[in-house]
Amino acid sequence: MTSVQTFDNRAAVLYGPKDVRIEDRPIPALSANEILVAVTAVGICGSDMHYYRDGYLGDFIVERPLVLGHESAGVVVALGSRVSRHRIGDRVTVEPSRPCGHCDMCSQGSYNLCRRIRFLATPPVDGALARYIAVPEDFAFKTPDDMTDPVAALVEPVSVGLSACLKAHISPGSRVLLTGAGPIGLCTLIAAQASGACDITVVEPSDSRRRRASAMGATRVLEPLELEDVVDEVDAFIECSGARRALESGIRSLRPGGTAVAVGMGAGAISVPMSAIQTRELTLTATFRYANIYERAVMVAGKYHRHLEELIDRTISLEDVAGHMRDSDTEQAALKTIVVPVDANTI
Amino acid sequence: MTSVQTFDNRAAVLYGPKDVRIEDRPIPALSANEILVAVTAVGICGSDMHYYRDGYLGDFIVERPLVLGHESAGVVVALGSRVSRHRIGDRVTVEPSRPCGHCDMCSQGSYNLCRRIRFLATPPVDGALARYIAVPEDFAFKTPDDMTDPVAALVEPVSVGLSACLKAHISPGSRVLLTGAGPIGLCTLIAAQASGACDITVVEPSDSRRRRASAMGATRVLEPLELEDVVDEVDAFIECSGARRALESGIRSLRPGGTAVAVGMGAGAISVPMSAIQTRELTLTATFRYANIYERAVMVAGKYHRHLEELIDRTISLEDVAGHMRDSDTEQAALKTIVVPVDANTI
Amino acid sequence: MTSVQTFDNRAAVLYGPKDVRIEDRPIPALSANEILVAVTAVGICGSDMHYYRDGYLGDFIVERPLVLGHESAGVVVALGSRVSRHRIGDRVTVEPSRPCGHCDMCSQGSYNLCRRIRFLATPPVDGALARYIAVPEDFAFKTPDDMTDPVAALVEPVSVGLSACLKAHISPGSRVLLTGAGPIGLCTLIAAQASGACDITVVEPSDSRRRRASAMGATRVLEPLELEDVVDEVDAFIECSGARRALESGIRSLRPGGTAVAVGMGAGAISVPMSAIQTRELTLTATFRYANIYERAVMVAGKYHRHLEELIDRTISLEDVAGHMRDSDTEQAALKTIVVPVDANTI
Amino acid sequence: MTSVQTFDNRAAVLYGPKDVRIEDRPIPALSANEILVAVTAVGICGSDMHYYRDGYLGDFIVERPLVLGHESAGVVVALGSRVSRHRIGDRVTVEPSRPCGHCDMCSQGSYNLCRRIRFLATPPVDGALARYIAVPEDFAFKTPDDMTDPVAALVEPVSVGLSACLKAHISPGSRVLLTGAGPIGLCTLIAAQASGACDITVVEPSDSRRRRASAMGATRVLEPLELEDVVDEVDAFIECSGARRALESGIRSLRPGGTAVAVGMGAGAISVPMSAIQTRELTLTATFRYANIYERAVMVAGKYHRHLEELIDRTISLEDVAGHMRDSDTEQAALKTIVVPVDANTI
Repeated sequence: MTSVQTFDNRAAVLYGPKDVRIEDRPIPALSANEILVAVTAVGICGSDMHYYRDGYLGDFIVERPLVLGHESAGVVVALGSRVSRHRIGDRVTVEPSRPCGHCDMCSQGSYNLCRRIRFLATPPVDGALARYIAVPEDFAFKTPDDMTDPVAALVEPVSVGLSACLKAHISPGSRVLLTGAGPIGLCTLIAAQASGACDITVVEPSDSRRRRASAMGATRVLEPLELEDVVDEVDAFIECSGARRALESGIRSLRPGGTAVAVGMGAGAISVPMSAIQTRELTLTATFRYANIYERAVMVAGKYHRHLEELIDRTISLEDVAGHMRDSDTEQAALKTIVVPVDANTI
Repeated sequence: MTSVQTFDNRAAVLYGPKDVRIEDRPIPALSANEILVAVTAVGICGSDMHYYRDGYLGDFIVERPLVLGHESAGVVVALGSRVSRHRIGDRVTVEPSRPCGHCDMCSQGSYNLCRRIRFLATPPVDGALARYIAVPEDFAFKTPDDMTDPVAALVEPVSVGLSACLKAHISPGSRVLLTGAGPIGLCTLIAAQASGACDITVVEPSDSRRRRASAMGATRVLEPLELEDVVDEVDAFIECSGARRALESGIRSLRPGGTAVAVGMGAGAISVPMSAIQTRELTLTATFRYANIYERAVMVAGKYHRHLEELIDRTISLEDVAGHMRDSDTEQAALKTIVVPVDANTI
Repeated sequence: MTSVQTFDNRAAVLYGPKDVRIEDRPIPALSANEILVAVTAVGICGSDMHYYRDGYLGDFIVERPLVLGHESAGVVVALGSRVSRHRIGDRVTVEPSRPCGHCDMCSQGSYNLCRRIRFLATPPVDGALARYIAVPEDFAFKTPDDMTDPVAALVEPVSVGLSACLKAHISPGSRVLLTGAGPIGLCTLIAAQASGACDITVVEPSDSRRRRASAMGATRVLEPLELEDVVDEVDAFIECSGARRALESGIRSLRPGGTAVAVGMGAGAISVPMSAIQTRELTLTATFRYANIYERAVMVAGKYHRHLEELIDRTISLEDVAGHMRDSDTEQAALKTIVVPVDANTI
Repeated sequence: MTSVQTFDNRAAVLYGPKDVRIEDRPIPALSANEILVAVTAVGICGSDMHYYRDGYLGDFIVERPLVLGHESAGVVVALGSRVSRHRIGDRVTVEPSRPCGHCDMCSQGSYNLCRRIRFLATPPVDGALARYIAVPEDFAFKTPDDMTDPVAALVEPVSVGLSACLKAHISPGSRVLLTGAGPIGLCTLIAAQASGACDITVVEPSDSRRRRASAMGATRVLEPLELEDVVDEVDAFIECSGARRALESGIRSLRPGGTAVAVGMGAGAISVPMSAIQTRELTLTATFRYANIYERAVMVAGKYHRHLEELIDRTISLEDVAGHMRDSDTEQAALKTIVVPVDANTI
């Protein structure tokens, strides 16, 4: 451990709206069951950009400097005294969850609903946009040999999509409607295919994103207004756009007994077509992150490696994060930008 | 069959809003798999009163004269040529469903969602407020010897309540919130107890209905405004009042991972607290009638026979139906009125 | 209909063990909701061969001449008076189930467990090895344009495999063990991949079948004896070989909470490792045919069209069936033989 | 803590088969999240008697002196430094599980299947037949004011029964078959009633136990040989006798699609009627202890308090344990004996 302490731990820290600074922080000390990960890839997520722009997201407010980033992968460079699952040099992908492990939700296996959960880059918990992070060994998963680190970082949004597909009961032959083809929507598209969906309609206003959805396996892509004209019914609807109208239109597209799943952070109150829910016994539910799914998501990401690589538009260094966020805020954002805090070849 | 045809079939027929007429109709001819039931008890339901007052309910409009009533029990007096489950003289309770039996919903066991279902007293299908009705043999269930005919008629609302409790995953030890203590709410209270719920809070504005709920096993009764102050969380919430605010308040009362079930016919669009649904992964769903539950509901009704008897405030003859509906429309309604088209002693 | 009656209906009829005769039968009259299908492809199944060799299978005994074959596809050539889902000229794949539609199992959506179900080529119900068969319209499904008729016939064993995978709760990332790589085992291998399984071990004594399993996507293939040495645990185990030892070994391979599904007709009593079932809370269940799955199976078969084509070793005419069964009984059987009762080009 | 250390911690310790000694042990030191419980009631379980007679149970062998007893309740007398859920003086019932909290089973909510679980009175973990035990605060539950300590100790077998009923999908109106009316069987009978079962057949060879089952709510009691004559089918079968024939007969009694649950420790390999499992798609599973159910079991035990009191035949002091076990081994055992290590009035 001593040698590790001599490293500087450069990080991208958010001080307030539009104020990201690159600064050197101490390398974290490890608890007995933690590993130190040299971070080689971090995806920038929509939530990171929300914090950057507004200084808050939903009920979470950036009250003191916060390291951003929660989609990460890297290499194990040090081990806590009781670590047994990992060895130095292992390539790992990092689940950003730190549940309490003792409450009723944790005990029941729904640790994503733990009231005391700590989650990377959700205030006040620092994230992964740093050279080194400490990770409880249970929340690091071996990166397969044939998976790149940037794709390993994207196991995080794949977990989000996979969790939504499981909640939506997607199974072989399911007809699925997805609204929104941003990174989460496209990862959900991958997860839906992995779940056996054979007929997947994606609704998305951006022409370029619709084209990506088609290239990644969507059976049909539509502009939002076209959705009203679709008369066939779907078994499952997953909302990934955050748009209120999308939720309502999607619910109306469900067959009797169908399920709608809202992904991501929605607004306070939303109007839903209650009479449709009643006369067709529809189900409306949501996913909040995920639990117990990372290991499966690694396998799904491996199977759809090529698609995930196509999601990545830019690769930048840690030092470029502030400039990149400033630019992304004004111009058309990339689909997925990967930050490389540590070059894997230097470890 | 010939002798049966000599009976007159007196019925309570709705011609339009507030226009119920008692008239003699032909006794129905039986198909091969139907039985003829002399109706000895019919509960008047909220939906009957809706049709009486407005001439419609939701999308269902009374366009030609309609016999009301769908909560019924009676005695088998004739058999179709291929009937094998019943004998003349059997006492039966009648499930009012007539699904098509061939569509995807029927094939999958969700016949309540059959798009071509015919249902007693839902336009244009005549109901049970008549001396004689024809019933497909699969939809008549033997009334237990120790169950009265009026209670046998109430197996119908017990089926509604039981279906809601199953959808809400109520099991032994569940904490439950019920809003609305009308007949459906109280039958749901019975079903929740039958499902093992040990902690049941009932919210209801009427003082007398709250008292009934307490007498029938509610752990706690509250006025609607008091609900806001309740801080403990429930596993399941069942909405039986039709009030918009009840749905929203109830959803907020759920523990993470909890389920809300809306019962009965709601309004077009309702505002729901989407951020609560997302951050706690709540589920909102609904029941539309029921399927495959009557036989179980008979057993539950038998176990809670005394409670169901206490629901019944008045017993009237078929001839009194028009006057009773007129009065109910202006004064405080009885909780449950039972109509006796045929005196069981005369069969 | 008149013109259709002028056709001869040649069929392959089993008169007793090893006594198959080709004879002309009348073309079936249609009920109102039936369609007449000119049969263009029939797969010969293991159960057909069982009846051929022994004259019985389990409790089912061939007591009078029986037309064999239940994996079939063809073209609609006549319509009953009330048929609405099909048109003359439609290509269809045929689900061989004829449930009663009225019992508790049918009502609940488990029509495969209907006590009065009639099933093609299960005595005394004639099967599909004929030029023409009458099919209830609800049990015929449109063959996609890009699917061949032989593959459409194989939607039947794909339904078996898909049903098993659903019962085994296979989902993306599942680790699966399959024992037996005959046609049912290989169709289950396809269904497991369609369900998202990423790690599928196939155990099979035949070297050539192991090679087919590898070519069709198995992650690993083993000889039966090698299974004992495998120490990693699987989430789901599906038994398709009918071998007693396979069932026991497979159950021992399950992770805590895992599920074993037995497919096909097993022996009377089998010894199971009860202490493993108890201390690991394993689940042992089975599939008996399938219900409500054909439409999904059509889509899965379309996605894995190439794999299904590779299953087909021989294509023969109806007239060749007797000779083929005699030869198959003595030499190494083909994996899947398709019979062509009617040449699609002549319809 | 200091004052507590002055107490002697008398305990009933098993040194080998039929060798129980009462000896004074140190009062356990508390970890930060543990509470010290003065034990006021411990039920003697069949597993305790197994260890007493044989020195082992299944794979668990008593290799060094072992304190017996895992059904316990008491009063909190000291708190670890970080305890927040309990106060000194609280009456509590104690769940005997100590899962690792980190493995896949724990993470998924199935901590009863944790491969590293420690469980009271399962070698080498000492049990509760002592004056004082240390308990992780998450595994102690408040005893309701109107529940006696002996009944609070029986929350443990009620948890076993409730867990089995949940696995068997017992819901209102279920028809249930129970084999075995010892303490676990009778607690399962209580749990089945709490779950809404209306028709419960209990099979038990002992006449006195059959009478108890009748008094506690069984609809029908049978001797084992009578079971063969029963022709009606049940929805769920729970095996609590450990008898091989019971398991086989019970499986044959299930309706199509029904579920059999084995409770308790069975023999190595058992013959099951595989053809019945296949043609009726039955499910055979088991419970191994329980998880996440104690809080619900407390409520169920409260509702059936009188029945649970009737299970208790004898109440003895800690000093009497050795003599009691010796006698129980030779004469007809009591149904349930409660040991009182500490008189609640002296705390």
